[in-house]
Amino acid sequence: MSNLTGQHLIDGQWKRGNSPATFNGVNPATGEALQPPIGEAGGAEVDAAAKAATAAFEQTLDLPPRWQADLLEAIAAKIMDLGDALLERGEAETALPRPRLTGERARTTNQLKMFASIVRDGSWVDATIDTADPKREPMPRPDIRRMLRPRGPVAVFGASNFPFAFGAVGGDTASALAAGCAVIVKGHPSHPGTSEMFAQAVLAAIEDRKLPAGLFALLQGRSHELSGALVKHPDIAAVGFTGSLKAGRALFDLAASRPTPIPVYAEMGSLNPLFVLPGAMKEKAGAIAAGLSGSVLLGGGQFCTKPGLIFTIGDDQAFVAALAQKLLAAPVMTMLNRGLRESFGKQIGALASTAGVKALARSESTGNAGTRASLFETDAATWQREHKLHEEAFGPAALVVHCRDLDEALACVDHLEGSLTGTVHLADADKSIAPRLLRHLESKVGRVIVNGYPTGVEVNNAIVHGGPYPATTDAGTTSVGSAAVRRFVRLIAYQDMPDHLLPPALQNANPLGIERLINSKRTRDAVV
Amino acid sequence: MSNLTGQHLIDGQWKRGNSPATFNGVNPATGEALQPPIGEAGGAEVDAAAKAATAAFEQTLDLPPRWQADLLEAIAAKIMDLGDALLERGEAETALPRPRLTGERARTTNQLKMFASIVRDGSWVDATIDTADPKREPMPRPDIRRMLRPRGPVAVFGASNFPFAFGAVGGDTASALAAGCAVIVKGHPSHPGTSEMFAQAVLAAIEDRKLPAGLFALLQGRSHELSGALVKHPDIAAVGFTGSLKAGRALFDLAASRPTPIPVYAEMGSLNPLFVLPGAMKEKAGAIAAGLSGSVLLGGGQFCTKPGLIFTIGDDQAFVAALAQKLLAAPVMTMLNRGLRESFGKQIGALASTAGVKALARSESTGNAGTRASLFETDAATWQREHKLHEEAFGPAALVVHCRDLDEALACVDHLEGSLTGTVHLADADKSIAPRLLRHLESKVGRVIVNGYPTGVEVNNAIVHGGPYPATTDAGTTSVGSAAVRRFVRLIAYQDMPDHLLPPALQNANPLGIERLINSKRTRDAVV
Repeated sequence: MSNLTGQHLIDGQWKRGNSPATFNGVNPATGEALQPPIGEAGGAEVDAAAKAATAAFEQTLDLPPRWQADLLEAIAAKIMDLGDALLERGEAETALPRPRLTGERARTTNQLKMFASIVRDGSWVDATIDTADPKREPMPRPDIRRMLRPRGPVAVFGASNFPFAFGAVGGDTASALAAGCAVIVKGHPSHPGTSEMFAQAVLAAIEDRKLPAGLFALLQGRSHELSGALVKHPDIAAVGFTGSLKAGRALFDLAASRPTPIPVYAEMGSLNPLFVLPGAMKEKAGAIAAGLSGSVLLGGGQFCTKPGLIFTIGDDQAFVAALAQKLLAAPVMTMLNRGLRESFGKQIGALASTAGVKALARSESTGNAGTRASLFETDAATWQREHKLHEEAFGPAALVVHCRDLDEALACVDHLEGSLTGTVHLADADKSIAPRLLRHLESKVGRVIVNGYPTGVEVNNAIVHGGPYPATTDAGTTSVGSAAVRRFVRLIAYQDMPDHLLPPALQNANPLGIERLINSKRTRDAVV
Repeated sequence: MSNLTGQHLIDGQWKRGNSPATFNGVNPATGEALQPPIGEAGGAEVDAAAKAATAAFEQTLDLPPRWQADLLEAIAAKIMDLGDALLERGEAETALPRPRLTGERARTTNQLKMFASIVRDGSWVDATIDTADPKREPMPRPDIRRMLRPRGPVAVFGASNFPFAFGAVGGDTASALAAGCAVIVKGHPSHPGTSEMFAQAVLAAIEDRKLPAGLFALLQGRSHELSGALVKHPDIAAVGFTGSLKAGRALFDLAASRPTPIPVYAEMGSLNPLFVLPGAMKEKAGAIAAGLSGSVLLGGGQFCTKPGLIFTIGDDQAFVAALAQKLLAAPVMTMLNRGLRESFGKQIGALASTAGVKALARSESTGNAGTRASLFETDAATWQREHKLHEEAFGPAALVVHCRDLDEALACVDHLEGSLTGTVHLADADKSIAPRLLRHLESKVGRVIVNGYPTGVEVNNAIVHGGPYPATTDAGTTSVGSAAVRRFVRLIAYQDMPDHLLPPALQNANPLGIERLINSKRTRDAVV
């Protein structure tokens, strides 16, 4: 199952594209080119995949409900069937250590199973029924029933930093399939072999379940033209993206300028500010420095939720010294790919060269040999003034911003752009100031964390992995957790539809046994 | 309370804007200019209103929960306090008959009360709690709780055709206030006096409830610059719009191109195809012709849900003759304003001049004296080919498209753009073909209606007044019914937040008594 072709998966077939161009995966630890060469898809492959996705999508509308659950569970099993070969290829393409990839594989299969359980429960379609009243004056009241239905084929752009959990069959793909959408993945060029293996697993699951082959496609490539062609294709109904602000915004702009605009749900990383209040500083500076350094270093600092900005209030010398020591003592890290390593180097250089910023520890990038962690410090006024201190340095680095008092910290919050997370460390002694800070902070973030760290995102019903722009393109959504499915659906109502013509979720007898809102009461009862 | 100033309502004050320019409301029945002259707001007024809205919004975050319910109910009462003066001004500005406006006032106050009841129930915030598990391996599981929170100040662009129910305090304003957002209304220039009276009612309610004055603003004007300045203002977090495709798309494009993009929820009207299947035609052609003509003529055909395209299959001569007779017999109608009258005239002219289209009844616009209803017919091939037959004719007109058989009707469905509604008349004899037609049709619309008519939109939990582009800019939303509130909120999660710092909706004790999803179970119980 692990023989790689370097081809694209289109309508259930591995296909060489029209273009003779190829590229290779690269081992970031050694610089070695990995085999086989990978084809570059273009407009013709996009069109073929989109047509197959549309045909498959239409076929699925006639399948028995909950077919998605069977598929998602089958994919999870097929991923495990890939065995160590998946971990080996993942490690070769990303330099992520084996235990991390093993854990990430578990997260990937668990989230597939979570979406399967959401589909099986069935209540996620938000079935809502207002029954008729023939006697209402001046006009009889019709029977109206609504539910969520899939939007159609979805384009997914995976992330480089989670080659499994946000890769070809990561959270966006899982939630789009759960919604009942067909998916076309544009594989990340940083781990093409890994993407192909995941696509093999999906194909095997689709074949086992005898589902339409066009339900899932993988297109490989590095060109902007490929991404653009996919987002502009008229059959694509929505886009899920995880990556940089620049790339995410470009796709968003393309989608908005289509004759028929479509939503782009882009998660574009963030600064993830963390505040240490004076009482917490006094009580547990050492523990926070230890926990925080672990969060900054996790995954080589290449997490969307890495705490990159640390605001302190008042005396913080021992804390900053302890944090610097932890980061200096960290081992050399190999970054995910050359592009990230180089842009991290530039960001670090920009930080170091800003007047008013002091390097407490500074990364020395040494080519393939790896990257060291960095820590910088500055004062609140400098941070507020210097725009380049508001850009994400994607890698093992953080900037401490010293605030004199709460007011200065609050002013800093007001200068923050949108972030995925915001963290506050507080102790009993902070109880008079904590509410104000939390109130300001929550307007800027999708998740507020108290006395913890933002890395390590739970996958459950309550999680929000989202936030105001530029963290994402829509703060009304999340890309992690069961609510992620809500991105890929639309609303539809049926008025006075004969019962047997309604989707099962809305039929009187409630054959699926789901929770529904009937005349403003939530129930699993039938309509009587 | 009904003395009109022609001024803008900004931060609780009636203010003349910087610009000396004014315009007048016009009585569409007489062409008479109505007093007083109305000021033209510009960038300075937008900025003042937006700053006041932001300040007010921030203040409301500290109010006890459910303050919105009291406000919405107070507004409904203050609207009734406007008394006959509101109906008189509405009639003068729109030529809509008194009984229609009386009914629309009831709908307006009822929808305010519906949103108040949603807020009082409190479950709309979708409170979701996943509790901690300190013993989980390899890492303890944190406590995570999420809910919906207001996005911030919302800009509302009301419609000309529902001066009350989608005017200054119509569905968009009501749902945005219910969400907890401040609202800035750009009043429709077609009924500025009516808008001012509604703003008076809101101001009185805000003052009675001692709420922040900036919660609601009204800016009057006719310029594109005003609309643009409002949508581009950095403090505006979302936009609600009802109107034409051209205007809605222009605002959508502006919002998408902002440094920080914001969502525009635009409802832009549609063709609302209606199909009469052969069995229904045989059984009840006369009744359908009668019902359909009523739906086409309702409100002078100036409804977003007017059925503008009628597809028949096979023999339809008696039906078409009956429909033409009903429309020819309809009284002369005064349209809402000169702009609509003129553009309707152009559309009718374009239909009449298309080769292959036959006029069965044709509108003769006679200036203020009014407009007559029109009916055209064509064949499926002509309709599929001629793009101008796919444009909405906003007014009392419809086009019958004769299909030879089901396949031709299905091909027509596939040529449809997105619509708010799609209607099918069917009888027992149609049961073999109805499912296929309904399946095709539902992919193109937000609401499917069987054996009914699309006009007369219910305001309840199940309604969907939305649909694929170009009916709206986001098929995942509705602008009518309780689900409309979902447009104006964002997601936020709290991780390990001390109970007393959580919003009441998420606190352990469930002090609001709302329905919550706790560890995947829906309950009103406390967290134990």
